[in-house]
Amino acid sequence: MQIGFLGLGAMGTPMARTLLTKGFAVTGYDADPARLAALAPDGLGAAESAAGAARGADVLVVMVQNYAQASTALLGDAGAFAALPNGATVLITSTIAPSQARELAAHLVAAARGLALVDAPVSGGPGGAAVGNLTLAVSGDPAAVARVQPVLDALGPTQYPMGDTVGMGLTLKAINQLLAGVHIAAAAEALELARRAGLPAETVMDYLAHSAGYSWMLGDRGPRMIAGAYAPPKSALAIFVKDLGIVRDLAAATGLAVPLVETARAQFQRAANAGFAGMDDSAVIESLRASAPPTDG
Amino acid sequence: MQIGFLGLGAMGTPMARTLLTKGFAVTGYDADPARLAALAPDGLGAAESAAGAARGADVLVVMVQNYAQASTALLGDAGAFAALPNGATVLITSTIAPSQARELAAHLVAAARGLALVDAPVSGGPGGAAVGNLTLAVSGDPAAVARVQPVLDALGPTQYPMGDTVGMGLTLKAINQLLAGVHIAAAAEALELARRAGLPAETVMDYLAHSAGYSWMLGDRGPRMIAGAYAPPKSALAIFVKDLGIVRDLAAATGLAVPLVETARAQFQRAANAGFAGMDDSAVIESLRASAPPTDG
Repeated sequence: MQIGFLGLGAMGTPMARTLLTKGFAVTGYDADPARLAALAPDGLGAAESAAGAARGADVLVVMVQNYAQASTALLGDAGAFAALPNGATVLITSTIAPSQARELAAHLVAAARGLALVDAPVSGGPGGAAVGNLTLAVSGDPAAVARVQPVLDALGPTQYPMGDTVGMGLTLKAINQLLAGVHIAAAAEALELARRAGLPAETVMDYLAHSAGYSWMLGDRGPRMIAGAYAPPKSALAIFVKDLGIVRDLAAATGLAVPLVETARAQFQRAANAGFAGMDDSAVIESLRASAPPTDG
Repeated sequence: MQIGFLGLGAMGTPMARTLLTKGFAVTGYDADPARLAALAPDGLGAAESAAGAARGADVLVVMVQNYAQASTALLGDAGAFAALPNGATVLITSTIAPSQARELAAHLVAAARGLALVDAPVSGGPGGAAVGNLTLAVSGDPAAVARVQPVLDALGPTQYPMGDTVGMGLTLKAINQLLAGVHIAAAAEALELARRAGLPAETVMDYLAHSAGYSWMLGDRGPRMIAGAYAPPKSALAIFVKDLGIVRDLAAATGLAVPLVETARAQFQRAANAGFAGMDDSAVIESLRASAPPTDG
């Protein structure tokens, strides 16, 4: 099976390497040629455009940062769309809006060349990607899902089949991002308040690990917040500005007010505006550091 | 050792029963005589006032709902203060504001009768209370802490000593309540959005249990939100209106803006206003149910 791979960033690189390790033929494209060169020893074929990666591909994996990049990579100049063989399947593993995935799918289907799109957003981070242990939420036409099944199996054994409608996998991922984003911003408020109130950070983390206030994100991001260790980023702060925007739009489409999502997104946006967009998302705590003058003491 | 016990609610009853089981002599008082009667077979002595419970007590445990009740029980008519023997120690296990604990402590100390106050807020719920497995954050004068140590040990082996200053244990507890409250309100947004977006609740809970969006509160309160099982309450919703108010005031005293705390508190307040104050705190999801009309579909 021939695979094209678009987007070799923090997640794309270990995912592509995992596919190569498991015996797939992979041709990649990324705007940064250094990323392609880094994977050459693993056997990656380097393309000079998205179209080049799509040529001859049975499955085209798209792991770019956002919808703008996905849309350009597929439908822009030298994009993958025209170069894809008839019957190829596009596998979107990036987190984009469900409605955006459906728009891209409609483009592919309208060509009447047997093209299809499957959305399979991933979680588990670079570590999970490196060992083929991602969690995937998968939706799309059953025949198309069956065609990409070997790729899904190589990326991770834990798969949630979310039905025939493109975007339902992304909807499930959006629910996770809602919680993940709010929990990071909540950890920031908790740890900054603890610091100002004079509590020792180590005791706070130990106590919370054994208490009802625990979250996975507190355990993971808390130590980086306490250390101020924002670079290099494990996951860039700008991602949550984007992902909580997706959640907000999804909620609005169902008529639901999501005040915590709005509030957390504003905190990430504030930190991004202060220069932390490309740093680790734990830097959202910086949005609180100068947020208010002491009122007493 | 003779113990007086004020407040025999959802937490106080199993805590008092644990102390009786471990051989302490306990005289209790609660505004509801049925609660005292329920503990008679366990050996509880029933007092007719807070003063009655305080008479002869070496340690007076205070596990009432809030500061207003604690203040009345100690300093009001027939309150414990005047009846406490010289040298007695008041052990506050309720969640009140750190500054309120310091006010009560100042009253006791000002009497120059060797009275002292130790704050030791508990977590672990009624289940932990029933088996003497609560987690405690303890602060106060070291001599006073030493005097209540046997009581602390009976309530739970996991103790965080937070120093000599009354209120630091409560400060640590407030940090936990910040996260717990925001996480419950976030779980409500996530599960209501998932429902409106057509995702099966069981799949959502299973996916989130294995994802970065997990929190202890999601795992605990999520099933009750999905089932709409708000009564009888495991923990009353009004508690988070109070506790997030304590957190907000504590943050304000350090000059810190805590927008997620404010937002979550407003959601609990909205649900309380809609009639859910005495129901389970998972009912905060009801604040979202009619929060906005559908904008499409």
